[in-house]
Amino acid sequence: MLFLVGIGLSERDISLKAIEICKDCELFIDRYTSMINDQRVEYLASVIGKQITTLTRSEMEEGSRQIIERARTRDVAILIGGDPLMATTHKILYTAAKKLGVKVLAVHSSSIFSAAIGESGLDFYRFGQVCTIPKWSAHYTPVSFYETISRNMKNNQHSLLLLDYDPIAEKSLLINEAIDTLEKAEQKYQQGVIIDKTKIFVLHNVSMPTQKNILTTISEAKNLSISDGTSVLILPASLTDIEKEVIASMYA
Amino acid sequence: MLFLVGIGLSERDISLKAIEICKDCELFIDRYTSMINDQRVEYLASVIGKQITTLTRSEMEEGSRQIIERARTRDVAILIGGDPLMATTHKILYTAAKKLGVKVLAVHSSSIFSAAIGESGLDFYRFGQVCTIPKWSAHYTPVSFYETISRNMKNNQHSLLLLDYDPIAEKSLLINEAIDTLEKAEQKYQQGVIIDKTKIFVLHNVSMPTQKNILTTISEAKNLSISDGTSVLILPASLTDIEKEVIASMYA
Repeated sequence: MLFLVGIGLSERDISLKAIEICKDCELFIDRYTSMINDQRVEYLASVIGKQITTLTRSEMEEGSRQIIERARTRDVAILIGGDPLMATTHKILYTAAKKLGVKVLAVHSSSIFSAAIGESGLDFYRFGQVCTIPKWSAHYTPVSFYETISRNMKNNQHSLLLLDYDPIAEKSLLINEAIDTLEKAEQKYQQGVIIDKTKIFVLHNVSMPTQKNILTTISEAKNLSISDGTSVLILPASLTDIEKEVIASMYA
Repeated sequence: MLFLVGIGLSERDISLKAIEICKDCELFIDRYTSMINDQRVEYLASVIGKQITTLTRSEMEEGSRQIIERARTRDVAILIGGDPLMATTHKILYTAAKKLGVKVLAVHSSSIFSAAIGESGLDFYRFGQVCTIPKWSAHYTPVSFYETISRNMKNNQHSLLLLDYDPIAEKSLLINEAIDTLEKAEQKYQQGVIIDKTKIFVLHNVSMPTQKNILTTISEAKNLSISDGTSVLILPASLTDIEKEVIASMYA
């Protein structure tokens, strides 16, 4: 059997259920979909009491055929940052296993998706589609995220923006890079969705001791002195009275 | 200090972090926002090694003034089903504490929001606004959820539908009651969003040993023999090729 085990947002977010399941499994970890440092892998190995093998990039991307084959005859678990089954990579893995007749179970954990919405203080019923701000390069400058944000705004819906993660560099897009990309997309579309005074929530290292929740503007966000870890951004639509009250106290 | 501690979707979803924090706190539990049975409270008390006091309805709804006062001078934790800060009740509590100068920290855990989207196999970037199907009574028959579903459909976005929870009866809206309400809203609006052959995902008791993931139709869903626990529904927009492939294997 194959277990896709969510380990949540920070070291000690791992659940009792996850630990109990992992104790009886051969253990692997996916460090390509999200940032998981050596210290966290060592911590997990020590609380579970077993060795953990890091999967290579190709093992994760090619449907992990070898891992699935192992899971035919024994219990195998892949540790995954956040909640599993959010990333396409994990769903492809799930699908590949099922096609080969191997049972799969997802073990759920804290997710940036719900944690960031909660930490923002905004009403989670008012969020529109989520999007990811991609890392641009000389020949790759996708802007479809702007269309999502623009449509959400027109529908008076908040936009949760994830920041692209580069597994090779082991780095997420930085906040100022993300703001720069938002502004460049604005220059292309010219719909006035991203202007200097546009309010933006920056939720940094959610669930970690270094967590920072910041409510700022596009022009100010560029000057934030945050250069590591993982952030998400939220572009709010107009706020309801209760949202205003909650946010006034949360960001006081 | 006041800790709002998410305990996730099922008994053993509680994290190591939550347990460590709770060991040093006076412990309360909110059984009004979501269903938490006696057995689960006993389990949590035993793994934490402390007594847990159930908050009364008025204590939860009136901003828990007394609890907040206690948290001025000692560490107090309120255990909350799922991920905290999703429900308005918890945000009001957070706001009330901050206004009285009491520090608050949310401890994140698995959430039906991300778990159900993952378990459905649908692309989480394609979800529109979430809504709750309310429990109708003779003089209370709100239908605004239909407008949300209809707008999502027009935008080719999936709709996650939560089912109303009645803390007095300790029961969520049943699947057939929810379908009935969807059909009655359709009769009012006549937009053809909910018809007999409309596909619907039923995700029941997610993260529990009794979990069931079902892909069915509106007309068939009424006959499902599920009469307890917690379910969520998803009304999918049109599916992409990769969604079709993932779903074909997940629901095989």
